[in-house]
Amino acid sequence: MTPERQARLKAVLAKRQPDLTVVTDFVHKSRNLAAIVRSCDSVGIMQVHAVVDEENYRTYRGTAASAQRWVEVVRHASLVPALAGLKSQGYQLIAAHLTDKARDYREVDYTKPTAIVMGAEIAGVSEEAVALMDSCVTVPMLGMVESLNVSVAAATLLAEARQQRERAGLYDTCRLDGTTYKHWLFAWSQP
Amino acid sequence: MTPERQARLKAVLAKRQPDLTVVTDFVHKSRNLAAIVRSCDSVGIMQVHAVVDEENYRTYRGTAASAQRWVEVVRHASLVPALAGLKSQGYQLIAAHLTDKARDYREVDYTKPTAIVMGAEIAGVSEEAVALMDSCVTVPMLGMVESLNVSVAAATLLAEARQQRERAGLYDTCRLDGTTYKHWLFAWSQP
Ligand SMILES: C[S@@+](CC[C@H](N)C(=O)[O-])C[C@H]1O[C@@H](n2cnc3c(N)ncnc32)[C@H](O)[C@@H]1O
Ligand SMILES: C[S@@+](CC[C@H](N)C(=O)[O-])C[C@H]1O[C@@H](n2cnc3c(N)ncnc32)[C@H](O)[C@@H]1O
Repeated sequence: MTPERQARLKAVLAKRQPDLTVVTDFVHKSRNLAAIVRSCDSVGIMQVHAVVDEENYRTYRGTAASAQRWVEVVRHASLVPALAGLKSQGYQLIAAHLTDKARDYREVDYTKPTAIVMGAEIAGVSEEAVALMDSCVTVPMLGMVESLNVSVAAATLLAEARQQRERAGLYDTCRLDGTTYKHWLFAWSQP
Repeated sequence: MTPERQARLKAVLAKRQPDLTVVTDFVHKSRNLAAIVRSCDSVGIMQVHAVVDEENYRTYRGTAASAQRWVEVVRHASLVPALAGLKSQGYQLIAAHLTDKARDYREVDYTKPTAIVMGAEIAGVSEEAVALMDSCVTVPMLGMVESLNVSVAAATLLAEARQQRERAGLYDTCRLDGTTYKHWLFAWSQP
């Protein structure tokens, strides 16, 4: 590996946000999942939780998604245990969900440990997920169409989260502990 | 048409932004074009300029894109005349383009009449387009992957444009002239 490559890996690891993640609640189109994972990489997310059927997961793994190598996608067969796990680790759970009770997505504090939950293409976020949320947020729709593409909605929330975290200085110093940092530097350095 | 439907059409027209548009420079995948048009509707854009082959345009028209009815997609066979037309109407031209000279996308004033130019999936924004731009902007990439999906990048810029326009009050009063308003209210009222 060239020294430039090594320096680039280190620079990216130094911006990783171990306390920000996305959970996809049966987002089944692999191109949507791939676009979400790609956006996650771009804001420093290390791990995505995909609640998805095994078949759709395999399709996703089979895509040549460029971010697959850089963002770990953990598959979960069902949602509630995945959310319970994050909750017990201290994450606030924020669903992107179109309901009257939802707040504007810019009103949430994403500098806290946060898991952003995205809903399925047709069904949206499941009721059992909504019941577990700390908040629901929407990207206000000013036109005739009711919803955005799920990867577009995810990117909109992530841009806001990134902006808040930039302002709070969360990209200014490395946030990984030594063990995690070394683990990923080693893994990424493999050919 | 129910009075509720009529009221909804009017409310949406009252938020339309006649001086904000998107130009796609050979974005050829119809699902990307459809996602962009859907995001455009959500921030009040009335017209998108798609520089695209006739075949890809036909594929797009054939998709059941829910926003097709609400956002006019004007096809152009080539880019330079399309941009020249917008320029002569007083639009600033802003390309979403990954180059060292590009500014952060949040540094541009989108409250001016603005055309946002998005590049092709593989080739990006063409050199001839770049030469005509007022500015190039990027969404800073903090991870390993070099670029975002084009519809995700478009949505990120549009969220910023919408936020600036909200703060400037550009959604607070109807911005269409009487003729345009009546034209669209009539067209949208057709079954
Ligand atoms: C195509 S939408 C599903 C729409 C579904 N019919 C519903 O009403 O929930 C897929 C997912 O994208 C996200 N999404 C789409 N538009 C959104 C918006 N304007 N605000 C917040 N999330 C949105 C949500 O996570 C949603 O579950
Ligand atoms: C997949 S990218 C094309 C990348 C192409 N290889 C290049 O280097 O230009 C398709 C289009 O999405 C937009 N885009 C993607 N990521 C972007 C980013 N981080 N900032 C600004 N625009 C971006 C640009 O308009 C780009 O032309």
